[in-house]
Amino acid sequence: MRVGLDIGGTKTDAVAVDSAGAILARVRRPTGWGPEAVVRSAVAAVRSLEAEVAASSADAGPMRCIGIGIPGQVEPGTGRVVHAVNLGVDELDLAEALAPLLAVPVSVENDVKAAAYGAFALSATPGSMAYLNLGTGIAAGIVAGGGLWRGARGTAGEVGHISIDPAGPLCRCGQHGCIEALAGGGAIAERWGRPGALPVRDVFDAADRGDAQARELRVGLARGVAAAVRVLVLTADVDTVVLGGGITALGERLREDVSAELAASADASAFMRSLRLSERVEMLPLGSPAAALGAALVGAPEEALARG
Amino acid sequence: MRVGLDIGGTKTDAVAVDSAGAILARVRRPTGWGPEAVVRSAVAAVRSLEAEVAASSADAGPMRCIGIGIPGQVEPGTGRVVHAVNLGVDELDLAEALAPLLAVPVSVENDVKAAAYGAFALSATPGSMAYLNLGTGIAAGIVAGGGLWRGARGTAGEVGHISIDPAGPLCRCGQHGCIEALAGGGAIAERWGRPGALPVRDVFDAADRGDAQARELRVGLARGVAAAVRVLVLTADVDTVVLGGGITALGERLREDVSAELAASADASAFMRSLRLSERVEMLPLGSPAAALGAALVGAPEEALARG
Repeated sequence: MRVGLDIGGTKTDAVAVDSAGAILARVRRPTGWGPEAVVRSAVAAVRSLEAEVAASSADAGPMRCIGIGIPGQVEPGTGRVVHAVNLGVDELDLAEALAPLLAVPVSVENDVKAAAYGAFALSATPGSMAYLNLGTGIAAGIVAGGGLWRGARGTAGEVGHISIDPAGPLCRCGQHGCIEALAGGGAIAERWGRPGALPVRDVFDAADRGDAQARELRVGLARGVAAAVRVLVLTADVDTVVLGGGITALGERLREDVSAELAASADASAFMRSLRLSERVEMLPLGSPAAALGAALVGAPEEALARG
Repeated sequence: MRVGLDIGGTKTDAVAVDSAGAILARVRRPTGWGPEAVVRSAVAAVRSLEAEVAASSADAGPMRCIGIGIPGQVEPGTGRVVHAVNLGVDELDLAEALAPLLAVPVSVENDVKAAAYGAFALSATPGSMAYLNLGTGIAAGIVAGGGLWRGARGTAGEVGHISIDPAGPLCRCGQHGCIEALAGGGAIAERWGRPGALPVRDVFDAADRGDAQARELRVGLARGVAAAVRVLVLTADVDTVVLGGGITALGERLREDVSAELAASADASAFMRSLRLSERVEMLPLGSPAAALGAALVGAPEEALARG
């Protein structure tokens, strides 16, 4: 079997996958803060997953390899992650730290790219796909021809920093009106500026109650997401755009806002109408194991894949 | 030998290419107006190219196949082009019309995609590339992994209709602030509204003389082109963006405007600075045979390629 971990800011999601790519078992455990604690919680998640598999009747075979999805920049071809700020990690060679503890090859991938590949693996449609992650920041992973689009220099799918309004809010990147400045959970929370564990949900609730600032932020979020969908379809021409990430916990309210925004541009433009964008946007089900599954599948060495 | 034609609004550019992809001969002839005249001028260009090859000492062999680049929508996998408005063609099956007259297989490709592949073939750099065509409209072709990125539904590279400013000018597509509404030659000529054979050049000249409207249009053009470059790098993550098309006849004045716009966003944003966009933008030399060459190479049937 292969193992995939999605190391998120609050929890580590771990799946065991058989040679056909089917999920045999899944566990979720809290993620530690800082490099050592992240490594410790990753090991604990793997041990707990192994116990889960052993307790089941699955014919899993020994663990062959581990793939990890992690927020932050992963240096191409290495197991090193830098700037994983949500984990308290400035720099960490996860593959080097974990391989001796777990005695199998470890590969590391950016979590959005891993989730893109996992969402593609879970999807029934064989076409090309972009996975648009709506979290603290906004970024996409693109799957085409059955594989992850890696690009030339590591910025494939970084649609969050495309500016769609020169008069829009200042982005943390220094530009104005970036998609992330409008639709990123971090930027929305900052502009909302009130305490609360789920600021984007608070904004939606306040907008429903008629709060003017909340309404403006909520409209901005839909504008940003719709713009990202248009950019992905008009540039990479993917069949579908799958929305995922923390903000999608808002469910139908988010979907309706985005659909309304796409419908407005379709009303204004025959060209936009011809793209049928609303029909091409899907939402990843809440609690989907896409990122952990993608991590298990995308980085597995060929020989490990062949052996299952 | 293979033959490539780039059928443009005023002239048809034809090249003969050997099995290694080298150009043996090139001729340019006026393009006729309307479906029958387009077919006639294509045949005339091929005959004239054959005479040119015969008169040379090149060991070209018989013509094996013809690839055609044409402005308009080419129905995938067919030789049919629709909405080639610059040619007076509403609908034409070019492959069906030409194959019996020329007695070889004919493939048809959108001219921007053909130019993208040709620019890649002419380029010394092996990485991925976007070719951004600055003409009446704005569109790009993307080459990655050595091949043309075709996308799912024929909109790959259609960056011209990404809106970058909700307060920007109305685009012919119905949206506001599209890249094409700011940077397309057609949109600029319409807003300039004064007679002249080369309206974008007139705008640049008038801006140099201090005309306020011309300055605004000229700044908009650079903003649009710079935005297209950012979109292509942040979404498809191509190594280089090659500018081509009629507007690039403006040469250094255009390059300087676009570089200044990219430099301004690099000054404002460390992230933008890290992308080194100015260094990744190139201009196709004026009179480059990229589109005709790409047409010859991109659509050639495998067996014709094998035979040269």
